[in-house]
Amino acid sequence: MTSKMSCPPGEEPLVGAENPDSAVGDLRSHPTPSYRASSQGLEEILYKSFPVLDHGFIRVVDYMGNDDAIVQAARVSYGRGTKKTLQDQGLIHYLMRHRHTTPFEMCEIKFHIKLPMFVARQWVRHRASSINEYSARYSVLDREFYIPEPQNLATQSSLNRQGRGGTFGEADAKRALDLLKRDAAQCYDTYEDLLNSDHQGRPLDPDRASLARELARINLPVGFYTQWYWKINLHNLLHFLSLRADPHAQHEIRVYALIMLDIVKKWVPHTYEAFVNYRLEAASLSKAGLNVLKRLLAGEAVAQENSGMGVREWREFEALFLKK
Amino acid sequence: MTSKMSCPPGEEPLVGAENPDSAVGDLRSHPTPSYRASSQGLEEILYKSFPVLDHGFIRVVDYMGNDDAIVQAARVSYGRGTKKTLQDQGLIHYLMRHRHTTPFEMCEIKFHIKLPMFVARQWVRHRASSINEYSARYSVLDREFYIPEPQNLATQSSLNRQGRGGTFGEADAKRALDLLKRDAAQCYDTYEDLLNSDHQGRPLDPDRASLARELARINLPVGFYTQWYWKINLHNLLHFLSLRADPHAQHEIRVYALIMLDIVKKWVPHTYEAFVNYRLEAASLSKAGLNVLKRLLAGEAVAQENSGMGVREWREFEALFLKK
Amino acid sequence: MTSKMSCPPGEEPLVGAENPDSAVGDLRSHPTPSYRASSQGLEEILYKSFPVLDHGFIRVVDYMGNDDAIVQAARVSYGRGTKKTLQDQGLIHYLMRHRHTTPFEMCEIKFHIKLPMFVARQWVRHRASSINEYSARYSVLDREFYIPEPQNLATQSSLNRQGRGGTFGEADAKRALDLLKRDAAQCYDTYEDLLNSDHQGRPLDPDRASLARELARINLPVGFYTQWYWKINLHNLLHFLSLRADPHAQHEIRVYALIMLDIVKKWVPHTYEAFVNYRLEAASLSKAGLNVLKRLLAGEAVAQENSGMGVREWREFEALFLKK
Amino acid sequence: MTSKMSCPPGEEPLVGAENPDSAVGDLRSHPTPSYRASSQGLEEILYKSFPVLDHGFIRVVDYMGNDDAIVQAARVSYGRGTKKTLQDQGLIHYLMRHRHTTPFEMCEIKFHIKLPMFVARQWVRHRASSINEYSARYSVLDREFYIPEPQNLATQSSLNRQGRGGTFGEADAKRALDLLKRDAAQCYDTYEDLLNSDHQGRPLDPDRASLARELARINLPVGFYTQWYWKINLHNLLHFLSLRADPHAQHEIRVYALIMLDIVKKWVPHTYEAFVNYRLEAASLSKAGLNVLKRLLAGEAVAQENSGMGVREWREFEALFLKK
Repeated sequence: MTSKMSCPPGEEPLVGAENPDSAVGDLRSHPTPSYRASSQGLEEILYKSFPVLDHGFIRVVDYMGNDDAIVQAARVSYGRGTKKTLQDQGLIHYLMRHRHTTPFEMCEIKFHIKLPMFVARQWVRHRASSINEYSARYSVLDREFYIPEPQNLATQSSLNRQGRGGTFGEADAKRALDLLKRDAAQCYDTYEDLLNSDHQGRPLDPDRASLARELARINLPVGFYTQWYWKINLHNLLHFLSLRADPHAQHEIRVYALIMLDIVKKWVPHTYEAFVNYRLEAASLSKAGLNVLKRLLAGEAVAQENSGMGVREWREFEALFLKK
Repeated sequence: MTSKMSCPPGEEPLVGAENPDSAVGDLRSHPTPSYRASSQGLEEILYKSFPVLDHGFIRVVDYMGNDDAIVQAARVSYGRGTKKTLQDQGLIHYLMRHRHTTPFEMCEIKFHIKLPMFVARQWVRHRASSINEYSARYSVLDREFYIPEPQNLATQSSLNRQGRGGTFGEADAKRALDLLKRDAAQCYDTYEDLLNSDHQGRPLDPDRASLARELARINLPVGFYTQWYWKINLHNLLHFLSLRADPHAQHEIRVYALIMLDIVKKWVPHTYEAFVNYRLEAASLSKAGLNVLKRLLAGEAVAQENSGMGVREWREFEALFLKK
Repeated sequence: MTSKMSCPPGEEPLVGAENPDSAVGDLRSHPTPSYRASSQGLEEILYKSFPVLDHGFIRVVDYMGNDDAIVQAARVSYGRGTKKTLQDQGLIHYLMRHRHTTPFEMCEIKFHIKLPMFVARQWVRHRASSINEYSARYSVLDREFYIPEPQNLATQSSLNRQGRGGTFGEADAKRALDLLKRDAAQCYDTYEDLLNSDHQGRPLDPDRASLARELARINLPVGFYTQWYWKINLHNLLHFLSLRADPHAQHEIRVYALIMLDIVKKWVPHTYEAFVNYRLEAASLSKAGLNVLKRLLAGEAVAQENSGMGVREWREFEALFLKK
Repeated sequence: MTSKMSCPPGEEPLVGAENPDSAVGDLRSHPTPSYRASSQGLEEILYKSFPVLDHGFIRVVDYMGNDDAIVQAARVSYGRGTKKTLQDQGLIHYLMRHRHTTPFEMCEIKFHIKLPMFVARQWVRHRASSINEYSARYSVLDREFYIPEPQNLATQSSLNRQGRGGTFGEADAKRALDLLKRDAAQCYDTYEDLLNSDHQGRPLDPDRASLARELARINLPVGFYTQWYWKINLHNLLHFLSLRADPHAQHEIRVYALIMLDIVKKWVPHTYEAFVNYRLEAASLSKAGLNVLKRLLAGEAVAQENSGMGVREWREFEALFLKK
């Protein structure tokens, strides 16, 4: 998983931020003919970086497969050759509806992402993916810290212990942001001071010791940015998006999910459409909920007390079906 | 993982074998320009089927990444841009040697494979991959049964309880193969009889019931062929190959592994070279073995009795270092 | 994952069936005091084998955790100590309802299972588990073949290409079962003939070669039984059960799932109850289905044509909500 | 994987550190009789916390299986019942030596661990495990920050870009630690200021808004402590330990690994012994290295130039075999 040993020959540590688009012109000037399945929608945005938050980005670096590849894999199971487009679309909806998930594993995508560390910490909970992250043991992190937009500052929700409530007034927002900026700047100053190293790795102050990078970095708050390559199959990506594009996800990871949702739409449009209908905007009904719905449809009046649901479940049920 | 529900709309069960190359002419006549990383070696053989055993085959259906993609992912970790080829090659060897495995996860390959069921049963023990298999609940299996070549018949090994020993004489081989052929033919005849169904799904004998496919198939021996799409990342593929291309693997799965090894060589030549040097033809030395080697190098005579190794471990050690 | 090498020292191949209960008396006569969380319900049935199909069985060999362990893990996330039982139960329902799945991963169970190979082939599609299977390369399989009960023979479903339709008449059933028995017996006779080996591994006929076990077994139909240890965490087990205890699963795997469902009920009763309510007997409503329900509740008449659903989806919707 | 929804009913956020041993007396006073396999060595330390670093700890909360369970699982594969102890030990060594890994998956362990966030970030790269982490969206983190012991401060290694070199002098150490303490204290003060909340969740200053916990925490450096339940099977744990107990691992994660290594020794002593011999203190020899060893044993003089190895690989080879 990671190394037991030192570090690679001839590799120098990087200092300073890299512009993710700097090499793109080059990469996009040389299309190569390939016999592989491709996606016109993704080819158009390959390598292009989409900005997220104040210093982050997402860009697609590589991919494999398209809507047809899903159909093709499903038809190995069913022992069938190619069919007409209409049937292909119907098959993808069928697969999504009945949770035949393996054909969606046949597509793969690789992103280059820059994101604050606290977002990265949520992100890695999704284990079924591959990651290569920028190493702060090996290289120096940039002076880039996430400062929320004032309108994204919010009080603790009084209903939801892990969510946000009302927004901040101007004065309170300014005060909070000033504190965040002050501490981030000071922590990064200390980081550089501890490293005691210029861009060529020579000590700034030759009279004192330079702290190892793996130790100096412990001073950096989780609002600082890191970056990684993230590779995941389409099935697992859709699972990630169903959780992280949800309104209950933390805003700062949700903005990444929403951009990836748009990318999925460009990549595999039929799958996207089926995903929205059968997952993203679908609802799950418990046995109790099913029973209540049948009673309601039969004209019976049902209230929480005689619903078989708890107060909170009833409130969610109401919001879904009984509110105008 | 699989379905809770019926089966897709408008999909008819397939009867009879499919020639995997029938659609290849078509697929290979339309290269598409793509900005993705590609592998010249793999493009040349994409979709082409390589025969394995008597009815099996392997063909590459899709892939993602190449040697450069591995280097690129490693350099995210090290915070570096592109370097010269010589350093790229050195970096791949470095990663393989020190078991930095995540960059090799950045490449992916998808095969279409036809294989006997007993081989498929060994194959699926490698869980970190995606599979879409031809469903014998949904479709009818072909009359294709693995009959070993006479020279591949072998007695049980007397040394190794899960291996093969000496080969068969001509008469014994003929006798064994005749038995296998007889039973396979009879089992398939019974399968068709139980299905009681022609190619359009109409009963052959309208006066009796046709057994459901999911039940009729229980009569087929594990020597019959199935087929599937198998998608796996390069790291996990190399792990598979290190076990299944090994001389101790069962011959019938090993022939598949050896072909995939050649495909890896075409796909990612630097990785292949590093894999052969640091894995496939490498050896693992126990603490005891290390100690013995040091004593031998210091000129000491060491025998099993004073080696700290058991009889069997000593025998393997001897074969590796002390045999001419 | 599996071996590169020969086989273990001093291990002799086993011939003949083992009675899974033979050692149970012993194992159950010595309870040991343990500080671990335990489940009274599971302790009572530990090691006892539940028969399945004609020769199969399931028995629990080990387990870890109980309902309290799930609550405890969830409360690490929420930073809380122990609470009262009522709240524990509510928390488990809450976790299940909102798909907080990680606490359910904190429980683990290990089964010893005997099952036909075609069932084993479906079973291993669930990759997130650990398996040790009886090796037919190493040992000789028993003369045990699954013969369905006559009432379980069924025609191919005309609606569902991977399901069963009507049952068989007596004469048709007898005919089919006789064919299955005849072929199974003949295949096993041939298997023994090819092995040419008595219980001590001496050739039955010293004048001819004995085929290696790994080759002789290719003659055995997938209706023959194998056995394995299967270890899985509770979250993944529930996912398995939601698919395999479903009425659309093949009967022969479903009977295993139903027994495991009962075992789950004994092991973690609160989780079982939540699972039934929020998964097993719950329903998923698509965006289109949600919309139709709202219109129905508002008193509007909706038919398939103006429902936004396809014919098949509408039929399923109807069955769920509109049938008496 | 994680929630789409709010938070559980009746759960209040926790403020302040919990003493992991506070509940242990209780838990350890009530052993329960169980028929499960148990480990005397682990029972003796169950729930006891082992301190790590300045505020961290490890304690075993639950486990499943022991050395016998590994043997038992292996013998299902080989079709065998119980054997004598000597053979059991030999079998475990055999399994380890030949990388038969599945029997080691049959044991499971669950830890409660308190660790700095930068250690947690390395830890989660090991994906094949289950985690429930204390949520800083839901609860307030403690004022506990990792301050290295002066003797563990070190300069950046000049040989190894991700390692440590020489130690710090007293003055330099004091200076560095003072900076770390100052920033940690200030960041935590700001955190509390932003939360604007006392232990009952009432605002400290009623005239300004209280920032949501999920935002306030972005100000905390990765040296702050978190805690989690971590559950992993023995095979994956040994893989983790082979990487993280290695001298090249970062000191701060290695001290956790070394304690877990001791725990493994208590839990499964035969497995531990085999692991040390065949993994932890074993070496891997490349094809080139094998070749050089044979030449050396044949009396030939070999230097890097004619070894077929690069300079760095040769240096490692020399250190292993040619140094006194």
